[in-house]
Amino acid sequence: MQLSDRVQKMQGSPIRKFNPIAIAAEDAGKKIYHLNIGNPDIETPDCYLDAIKKYDAPTIGYAESGGDKNLQDAVIDYFKRYDVELKRNDILITNGGSEALSMAFCTIINEGDDVLIPEPYYTNYHTFVTMSGGSVVPVQTSPDNGYQWATEEQLEAALTPNTKAIVCITPGNPTGRVLTLDEMRLVGEFAKKHDLWIIADEVYREFVFDGVKPTSFSMIDEIKDRVLIVDSISKRYSTCGGRVGLLVSRNEEFQAAVMKIAMGRLCVPTLEMIGATELYKLPASYIESVRDEYEARRNVAYEELMKIPGVVCQKPGGAFYMTIKLPVESAEDLLIFMLEEFEDNGESMMFTPAAGFYATEGKGINEIRIAYVLCQDDIRRAMELLRLGIEAYKAR
Amino acid sequence: MQLSDRVQKMQGSPIRKFNPIAIAAEDAGKKIYHLNIGNPDIETPDCYLDAIKKYDAPTIGYAESGGDKNLQDAVIDYFKRYDVELKRNDILITNGGSEALSMAFCTIINEGDDVLIPEPYYTNYHTFVTMSGGSVVPVQTSPDNGYQWATEEQLEAALTPNTKAIVCITPGNPTGRVLTLDEMRLVGEFAKKHDLWIIADEVYREFVFDGVKPTSFSMIDEIKDRVLIVDSISKRYSTCGGRVGLLVSRNEEFQAAVMKIAMGRLCVPTLEMIGATELYKLPASYIESVRDEYEARRNVAYEELMKIPGVVCQKPGGAFYMTIKLPVESAEDLLIFMLEEFEDNGESMMFTPAAGFYATEGKGINEIRIAYVLCQDDIRRAMELLRLGIEAYKAR
Repeated sequence: MQLSDRVQKMQGSPIRKFNPIAIAAEDAGKKIYHLNIGNPDIETPDCYLDAIKKYDAPTIGYAESGGDKNLQDAVIDYFKRYDVELKRNDILITNGGSEALSMAFCTIINEGDDVLIPEPYYTNYHTFVTMSGGSVVPVQTSPDNGYQWATEEQLEAALTPNTKAIVCITPGNPTGRVLTLDEMRLVGEFAKKHDLWIIADEVYREFVFDGVKPTSFSMIDEIKDRVLIVDSISKRYSTCGGRVGLLVSRNEEFQAAVMKIAMGRLCVPTLEMIGATELYKLPASYIESVRDEYEARRNVAYEELMKIPGVVCQKPGGAFYMTIKLPVESAEDLLIFMLEEFEDNGESMMFTPAAGFYATEGKGINEIRIAYVLCQDDIRRAMELLRLGIEAYKAR
Repeated sequence: MQLSDRVQKMQGSPIRKFNPIAIAAEDAGKKIYHLNIGNPDIETPDCYLDAIKKYDAPTIGYAESGGDKNLQDAVIDYFKRYDVELKRNDILITNGGSEALSMAFCTIINEGDDVLIPEPYYTNYHTFVTMSGGSVVPVQTSPDNGYQWATEEQLEAALTPNTKAIVCITPGNPTGRVLTLDEMRLVGEFAKKHDLWIIADEVYREFVFDGVKPTSFSMIDEIKDRVLIVDSISKRYSTCGGRVGLLVSRNEEFQAAVMKIAMGRLCVPTLEMIGATELYKLPASYIESVRDEYEARRNVAYEELMKIPGVVCQKPGGAFYMTIKLPVESAEDLLIFMLEEFEDNGESMMFTPAAGFYATEGKGINEIRIAYVLCQDDIRRAMELLRLGIEAYKAR
């Protein structure tokens, strides 16, 4: 009884692997500020649970494989904010953005295909690409210019003969980098030139700061047949545990194919789609208020970060992450120190070492990701603890 | 921009493909009795939604990738009814039995591997095996002896050099066939002899009739390292739209591997797991009452069926399906006639042509599946309509 080659090639989660050490520290009475996972503390809008509570059919039966029509209609209205016209059949409702990603790769990737992904990247891309039999090929970046990746030079340098798709996430996880519309067009031209699919992960779409307007790859008409948009209620509406996502595509051949997979898994939970419908109906002003809160947190985190001598970090333009180069040799070693040895008034903090976000061996070893998903006071304290921890680590 | 080979090999759903014709008939005012899909009309127990309504944390955040501990504990208690001792780590909570299946195949199947499946089979097995790069190899059966398949002769005849696993569903969909514990042991011996994984789909576990006791492959100690149990709240608790399932394995290497996939997709919806916990806590007597209702429906359906000259069907022992050989050449042609031309007092009925449940070309063409998921009066009327429809079809 052997396991599959593919599952053996998959990375374990670099985000979750230090949890046992953190739990041990917490069990020993230490307070840990968790900046290591993107689980927002913003309240889920009441309309979500309120709508679910009103469910009164006697049986909770199967939903349509493509998704609930009311939810599709709410999504259609939501996309009008971007002047994007969708039909119900363009929108496949999925079990979170995660299933949208796994279905997208399964529908387009063959054994031996390559998928370009700017690194550092959201690690589960690696899981899903590997599941589909493909390989991740990193687009190289540098912390020194804020992980810029959308240049012709960088993209062409990464291209292989077997490249079938490119993954774009803007605003970015783990870097917070936001693409300009011109950069998105450049990526689109590159994809057209080399006949690539574009998987556009836009789950942080509206979380762009400093007055920048949110965008979507679906706004670029020239590539509408090759763009697969991944969306989710997790971040925008602080409903990570709802597990409702979308895969939007205006390529009919793609939609017919992915629907075979969708029918195989039958449907997304009926109740969660009822809740999600109300979320997509929330006005733009709701999302703007959440964005303002994240922007304030980014400012606090960045202000405190700049007090640490030797860090390298360009102020990120969006999402709720930063990737930071630290003045240490090993971020993993620092993290273990922070959890096991360091404390200040019984407190410490937790980040994610960034090496796991890279496919290139040896890269990111002195980089970390933080998720600023706590309230501003806690962020300030957590960043202070990071500074004090680095001081103590260097003074050992 | 090509699609993947795998998605192009997948079958469309034979269960859903006639829906447009049925919808057209209904739009034209015909009443259709739907025996074509296993969506039970039994009421979802109130405890499901009641528990969800009590959720009062401000944020609906991510759950553990392996599943909610309370749900795992309820499952542990439930399995004690079968004298099976499980630990939390043996139980992976999934997005329905569907995800349990797809994760199981993804974890064990390589490109080029074969999976033995008695045909006719639940068609989505084909979808998930194909997704994993494997091929379905049918174990041949016959309607004349009630689709018996668990004999050494039949299993050995189906075996190929690349066989990696066998799928067992008891009680069976689409045939309703129930394996005896001796037959299950025989399958276990066969799997041990040829070093195969056993994927045991037990979502209908307790729906066994005529005083037979329910069983589980997890009861057979000799194969506990190679059995992967698929379970679900969909059928037993009439909560198809809840999408909560389980993948139970006491093979630690398997669990560590499948957890990589589970972490990739993050988690199952928080609220649905809260509801499902209450379902698994329901007493055995609840499930027995549902079983009694299905047994009564089976009796009604079978009694009416026996009034149709020329049908071949052994009284099925469980689940809520029957597969029936009809005295016609093409069940698909009959179905289109039933929907488009036939009516009796403005009514007709719908079944599923069984050819789509076969991998072997040309088999099942004159067979159908019915799901007796309506109340007894409706089942009786639907089966009467089947009889009248066949009469009219033959008299054309």
